[in-house]
Amino acid sequence: MTMIKGGIIVTSSGTFTGDIRIKEGKIFKIGRNLSAGEEKVIDAEGRYVLPGGVDVHTHMDLDVGIARAVDDFYTGTVAAACGGTTTIVDHMAFGPKGCPLGHQVEEYHRLADGKAVVDYGFHGVMQHIDENTFSEMEELFQEGITSFKGYLTYDYKLDDAQIYELMRKMKELGGMPAFHAENHDVITFLRKQFVEQGKTQPMYHAKSRPAEMEAEAVARLLKIAHYAGDAPVYIVHLSTESGLQEIREARARGQKNIYVETCPQYLVFDESMYLREDALKYIMSPPLRKETDEKALWEGLARDEIQVVGTDHCPFHYAVEKQKGKDDFTACPNGAPGVEERMRVLYSEGVAKERISLSQFVKVTAENPAKAYGLYPKKGVIQPGADADLILFNPMETEVLTKKNMRSAVDYTLYEGMQVQGRIEKVLLRGNVIVEENEFIGEKGQGEFLVRGKSR
Amino acid sequence: MTMIKGGIIVTSSGTFTGDIRIKEGKIFKIGRNLSAGEEKVIDAEGRYVLPGGVDVHTHMDLDVGIARAVDDFYTGTVAAACGGTTTIVDHMAFGPKGCPLGHQVEEYHRLADGKAVVDYGFHGVMQHIDENTFSEMEELFQEGITSFKGYLTYDYKLDDAQIYELMRKMKELGGMPAFHAENHDVITFLRKQFVEQGKTQPMYHAKSRPAEMEAEAVARLLKIAHYAGDAPVYIVHLSTESGLQEIREARARGQKNIYVETCPQYLVFDESMYLREDALKYIMSPPLRKETDEKALWEGLARDEIQVVGTDHCPFHYAVEKQKGKDDFTACPNGAPGVEERMRVLYSEGVAKERISLSQFVKVTAENPAKAYGLYPKKGVIQPGADADLILFNPMETEVLTKKNMRSAVDYTLYEGMQVQGRIEKVLLRGNVIVEENEFIGEKGQGEFLVRGKSR
Amino acid sequence: MTMIKGGIIVTSSGTFTGDIRIKEGKIFKIGRNLSAGEEKVIDAEGRYVLPGGVDVHTHMDLDVGIARAVDDFYTGTVAAACGGTTTIVDHMAFGPKGCPLGHQVEEYHRLADGKAVVDYGFHGVMQHIDENTFSEMEELFQEGITSFKGYLTYDYKLDDAQIYELMRKMKELGGMPAFHAENHDVITFLRKQFVEQGKTQPMYHAKSRPAEMEAEAVARLLKIAHYAGDAPVYIVHLSTESGLQEIREARARGQKNIYVETCPQYLVFDESMYLREDALKYIMSPPLRKETDEKALWEGLARDEIQVVGTDHCPFHYAVEKQKGKDDFTACPNGAPGVEERMRVLYSEGVAKERISLSQFVKVTAENPAKAYGLYPKKGVIQPGADADLILFNPMETEVLTKKNMRSAVDYTLYEGMQVQGRIEKVLLRGNVIVEENEFIGEKGQGEFLVRGKSR
Amino acid sequence: MTMIKGGIIVTSSGTFTGDIRIKEGKIFKIGRNLSAGEEKVIDAEGRYVLPGGVDVHTHMDLDVGIARAVDDFYTGTVAAACGGTTTIVDHMAFGPKGCPLGHQVEEYHRLADGKAVVDYGFHGVMQHIDENTFSEMEELFQEGITSFKGYLTYDYKLDDAQIYELMRKMKELGGMPAFHAENHDVITFLRKQFVEQGKTQPMYHAKSRPAEMEAEAVARLLKIAHYAGDAPVYIVHLSTESGLQEIREARARGQKNIYVETCPQYLVFDESMYLREDALKYIMSPPLRKETDEKALWEGLARDEIQVVGTDHCPFHYAVEKQKGKDDFTACPNGAPGVEERMRVLYSEGVAKERISLSQFVKVTAENPAKAYGLYPKKGVIQPGADADLILFNPMETEVLTKKNMRSAVDYTLYEGMQVQGRIEKVLLRGNVIVEENEFIGEKGQGEFLVRGKSR
Repeated sequence: MTMIKGGIIVTSSGTFTGDIRIKEGKIFKIGRNLSAGEEKVIDAEGRYVLPGGVDVHTHMDLDVGIARAVDDFYTGTVAAACGGTTTIVDHMAFGPKGCPLGHQVEEYHRLADGKAVVDYGFHGVMQHIDENTFSEMEELFQEGITSFKGYLTYDYKLDDAQIYELMRKMKELGGMPAFHAENHDVITFLRKQFVEQGKTQPMYHAKSRPAEMEAEAVARLLKIAHYAGDAPVYIVHLSTESGLQEIREARARGQKNIYVETCPQYLVFDESMYLREDALKYIMSPPLRKETDEKALWEGLARDEIQVVGTDHCPFHYAVEKQKGKDDFTACPNGAPGVEERMRVLYSEGVAKERISLSQFVKVTAENPAKAYGLYPKKGVIQPGADADLILFNPMETEVLTKKNMRSAVDYTLYEGMQVQGRIEKVLLRGNVIVEENEFIGEKGQGEFLVRGKSR
Repeated sequence: MTMIKGGIIVTSSGTFTGDIRIKEGKIFKIGRNLSAGEEKVIDAEGRYVLPGGVDVHTHMDLDVGIARAVDDFYTGTVAAACGGTTTIVDHMAFGPKGCPLGHQVEEYHRLADGKAVVDYGFHGVMQHIDENTFSEMEELFQEGITSFKGYLTYDYKLDDAQIYELMRKMKELGGMPAFHAENHDVITFLRKQFVEQGKTQPMYHAKSRPAEMEAEAVARLLKIAHYAGDAPVYIVHLSTESGLQEIREARARGQKNIYVETCPQYLVFDESMYLREDALKYIMSPPLRKETDEKALWEGLARDEIQVVGTDHCPFHYAVEKQKGKDDFTACPNGAPGVEERMRVLYSEGVAKERISLSQFVKVTAENPAKAYGLYPKKGVIQPGADADLILFNPMETEVLTKKNMRSAVDYTLYEGMQVQGRIEKVLLRGNVIVEENEFIGEKGQGEFLVRGKSR
Repeated sequence: MTMIKGGIIVTSSGTFTGDIRIKEGKIFKIGRNLSAGEEKVIDAEGRYVLPGGVDVHTHMDLDVGIARAVDDFYTGTVAAACGGTTTIVDHMAFGPKGCPLGHQVEEYHRLADGKAVVDYGFHGVMQHIDENTFSEMEELFQEGITSFKGYLTYDYKLDDAQIYELMRKMKELGGMPAFHAENHDVITFLRKQFVEQGKTQPMYHAKSRPAEMEAEAVARLLKIAHYAGDAPVYIVHLSTESGLQEIREARARGQKNIYVETCPQYLVFDESMYLREDALKYIMSPPLRKETDEKALWEGLARDEIQVVGTDHCPFHYAVEKQKGKDDFTACPNGAPGVEERMRVLYSEGVAKERISLSQFVKVTAENPAKAYGLYPKKGVIQPGADADLILFNPMETEVLTKKNMRSAVDYTLYEGMQVQGRIEKVLLRGNVIVEENEFIGEKGQGEFLVRGKSR
Repeated sequence: MTMIKGGIIVTSSGTFTGDIRIKEGKIFKIGRNLSAGEEKVIDAEGRYVLPGGVDVHTHMDLDVGIARAVDDFYTGTVAAACGGTTTIVDHMAFGPKGCPLGHQVEEYHRLADGKAVVDYGFHGVMQHIDENTFSEMEELFQEGITSFKGYLTYDYKLDDAQIYELMRKMKELGGMPAFHAENHDVITFLRKQFVEQGKTQPMYHAKSRPAEMEAEAVARLLKIAHYAGDAPVYIVHLSTESGLQEIREARARGQKNIYVETCPQYLVFDESMYLREDALKYIMSPPLRKETDEKALWEGLARDEIQVVGTDHCPFHYAVEKQKGKDDFTACPNGAPGVEERMRVLYSEGVAKERISLSQFVKVTAENPAKAYGLYPKKGVIQPGADADLILFNPMETEVLTKKNMRSAVDYTLYEGMQVQGRIEKVLLRGNVIVEENEFIGEKGQGEFLVRGKSR
């Protein structure tokens, strides 16, 4: 038994000072001046006690064809843990036609089990849909895989009818369909055209993926979801004001069940990064946008229009894989690390700069993603019965983010040199301290697979 | 010490099953399977444990000139308690020019102290503003009176410059300015015109106060608040879709710090009530509106556009005072009872009919009003350190609302004969059971005056 | 030389009483009390003198694979003329890949030249786009074919990149890209699903083409056009409120160069027609919608949000071709006649019922389509120098629309039995009276091919 | 008889080349290559032939209490004529209570008759409303005074009930109620406060009249008009984006009959002018605003959201009357000249800079104001039967605006030194050339009083 003593406990309503008694990995009691028994006492005075981060958008050990993400489930989750994230839901891409979905689940268990150091779940990533898909999906639901993602771009994109079918199935089952929203045809055309014109510098990565083509895909998803009876629809990594505007308009027209995620990189950087010498680090899809987009996304968070901040953590070495794009952005693997930086960057740029409240921080980093993906109230909330996944956070200190203090296997951080307000002092997973002053002190494989339920 | 055992605890995030230990009137611990000591145990299995209701819009013992509200602070708060409301903030109208504000505070303490059976605070109601007003207001702030209301209609209405000054002062102090939003000139004209035309039936009460004249006043308040630097503005008893539309548009333009209240009567009844034989019961301002307005207000609650459900409890006997309006609606005292019915009606019509979630119910009846008016986290929330104001609510039972089972001194209920889902089994105020199966078992005068703080 | 004497001349600004002198087929003078010379005088007292109708959406002699439209350029244009339409722009579908565009132009000249009795132009209908398309398009521009249409549904639909390229090319050239806006994938899926489920009655035609799937396609077009630098985009036969809403929102965001067309059938009928015994008559795409859509489209016209009323005239015999759909709506050729009814139905339902003004009538039936498609100021306006295409219209009389008085080769009218306000007394084409009291008195082949210019 | 030969005639639809024959002061014929008879021929080749300007917002000879406008009906209308304006509607303020409206009409005829050199009408300006007002108004209607204006600010402001009554009366009669929209209370408070604080520099004129206080008053007017059954409402000199936004939202909600006017000064200047040494020249109400407001107003014109450009011509000598405000902006008479500059500034800044089209220019300077105020089709349009009020305008030349070339009696122009594109070569009033190359060649008193009809 452990007791967290005298911390400032942060919930989605506000804060209060109190103690938390942990028993068998769960929050057992929350109270004032609880009498300490024999248990281990952690003094939290002056610290925020936050729910452990829930990052529902990671790509560990992912093979993208031209490269493989350099974090496996061990290094990636150590990074997560050190960054205050105690739960991830990773993207598990299903194999080619004919390959049963269950096969990939087994494969992902092989990749993650015994390695992950935070708790983890898997999203199913639909790269095709055939006549067996939906029955297989029902089986996976039983195994706790209750969210499925589709792409609107890339070769393995779903067509609009498949999107519709997936939404309907998720509505029926109570699951969550998630989508990468960019228009395929126009982007493909622009990429080809730029290459033909010799416009292969990193900035053309951004230019080949216009904001309007995100907004288009968002609008399309929303219309299809509306036709599917206001089926749930979760839009991953929203990056543009114009996409957000479509969401506002749909909600103003009365559409329900729209969930929106953005990522720290879209809140903090703009496309001028593509003019830097190390621009390849920032090649990701969607690309970095304009300052006006950053501002709009912050407003979206502040107005509760965006529910989740994920990372799209998908790291490639700058010195190795990213260099494939040296002469041609289309050859550069898309993706960047972020699982380790998310909580700190969002706290510092968001809460400390008074763009969002502390309660909103807790909602978008933990409570909302847990709810959206069937993890609540086991994860994402500080209340009796929940897993004792907690962060002790000192808001008074500052820290400089730098690769040399980071745990991800990748060779860079997007935020090199950024001074952040606040410091993670301790991270607890199911009651055990697994991170102490930026040092991982847990055990390989301690992470448990999460059998997820319905969305709420 | 008391323990509430095994209830379904409802927060603004969701629900969980747990126990609550109460010590010295406050929530001391919340946990799972807490070991009961010597304390009194209340079995809450299968019951919702809700935060006690916070009704921030009551008019106890109010003299409106042509009549006096028939509930004093004793009968009115007994009614509140039996209806699950453990905190009220009552409207204390300041006297004529020259009369210092402090005088009325003393008067209200005389009216309430020793009588009230739930905790209570006072809003200051500005019927004029002069050169001393704002310095006196600062003194009242010290005494815990941190919200001030103005009318945009009635003889004692504030003009637009006074509204502006009040908003600025409240912004400076961290208080909350509240407003009754209806256009004075046009309504006065229409009332006079109808009377001249012999149109004095109750329906003309509604027709003399058009929806557009609420929307106009709302728009005016919002513009003035925006000019005052997005000063806070709290709109009491919003009753129309067109008023809500103004609020939506202001928020869409980026305006912050807008708080909106509606009341159960505007959610449940429409103006056809003014054609009933007992129409005088429903004479209140603003009047009942159209079905489309009801629908819009429910949507406003569901979309978090409306933050608070208050009552505007202002009861007059149907058989006595209300009969003054028999031949002329303008002679009828405006107002109706509601403090006893609010929680049950809103639960039944809102939660049970799936128009709002249980979390939203808790927010609009307790958490949000407590936050808006400087009572949070003492009131409005179930967390350690908060006052143990709790309701044990059985959602499985039903009840028929009828005057003969009610405690208000008034001789009718608006909801006579309405069957509601759910039943209040127990109400606790600061840890003490004060209502048991619809019987008030507390003591006269047990209510404490609330020294309120800043809004949040 | 001819003079129209004493008519009420209708322009897009208003009306005035005056005389029109015609010389060499053109309007030579407009004035008050012009002295009649030796010319023929037509007394127009008490008549509206309207610009001849411009119908920019017809399908004469069209082969849709499963059937051929039963009006050729002779019968179809006689019908047009009798209905007050003196200009059509017909849809000329280009052949398969490899077939040069010019080939089809020759083919269409063969179909139309020497037959048409009103003036005519051709839209190019892109059923594919390849590397030669745009250079061929430039050649066609020289020949006066300056608008090109793409479908977003059907097998020959364009993909989003082709849409983008077409818009850009049109922007560059000053031409007009037009689009049939419906989502292909979802509609195809629904049609297939309904057939599999045995849901083959006409109502399923409507259900397989949901309103949201029009709105989706509209939104997509608008986003692509916006990305193409606010390229012009012309949406044919808009049928839904939700589609119109997308257009409103885009314009509210500042997007320019959006042109919208609807058709009389979408203004007058709703989907309940699909429950009638003769439902097959009304099988067209998009399908008839709901009453709320009709209402919204009328508002769109009244607020200048919709610029054009075309017909999508594409007639099939009810007794013959339409019967293919008897057992399965998917086998029924899509389309219905309308070129003969447009002006009368729109006047009667629109102007006479005070939904739109007389000036708006003139704009949407003549001036705006002429401007959009490079025919202005030769067509669509009453001013010196314009072709003397005129209608003498008696607003005081009424008429019953019935097939037996109509000229189209098809065996039915959608409006059988409808009493319309107003009667076309005379129609002039380039100064010659070609219709007199509903009798065509012109000559076969008198219509001239229109070498169109840039849009404005 | 006169003929304008070969000009580019501009209408609200577009342009065409043609000749105009004038007979008895009216347009008699418009045509191509009209044979010239014995009449005087004016060669207009390469010139735009524009309808003479209609300025519906002037204050000639106005006594504002602290000063009198320095243009009487002679100098003011000579200025108008030289600026291409051939019609004005001047603001005739009614006298104190008890003074019949008719009295002031006589007074204004005394001021204008025999002096004015362009045609003129009078708006009635309501400074109070009593029981006789509306019956007197009906009499004035018979005399052709069919529009009445109210102020929402200043001591003689109308209250909201009077606004409502005025709107209803105008709706009944077919007249036009016009309003100066600014919030009285807050502005009065701010002015007083600034003076007390010693903030009396010109910039505080702008700061005392915040944009939100215009938007508030606009919103209030729109709500009252909506309640009055979408009564017509004409908002004079709109100056802010936020006011325009209210109008957009009202129209989006379906409200009809909203007319909006702005003035060139609000399109061209911003509040930084109040920092200039000659800032007093720019003291007017509403004040100059921000660049974003200018931009929004241009967009409003381009999107047909603003119907009219007037001037609010109200000139005071900078060297004399304006100097009263030297030490205190509140002592400075409000107003500035503009009747002479309007057409040139709007053409140059609007049409030549491609912010609005030539057709829009004609609409906002002539056709729309004529329609709004019952002057159409006598004024504001080039068509047979209309008065031959015409401008020959050479778009190829440029000119520098400077006081020394101007005719107004006032000692300055707001636009000193501005180079404008285009030059007015001739101005015709009812067929007579009254201005030739910037020289007035007409006769004093040639202007006729305009008996106006209903709005349309």
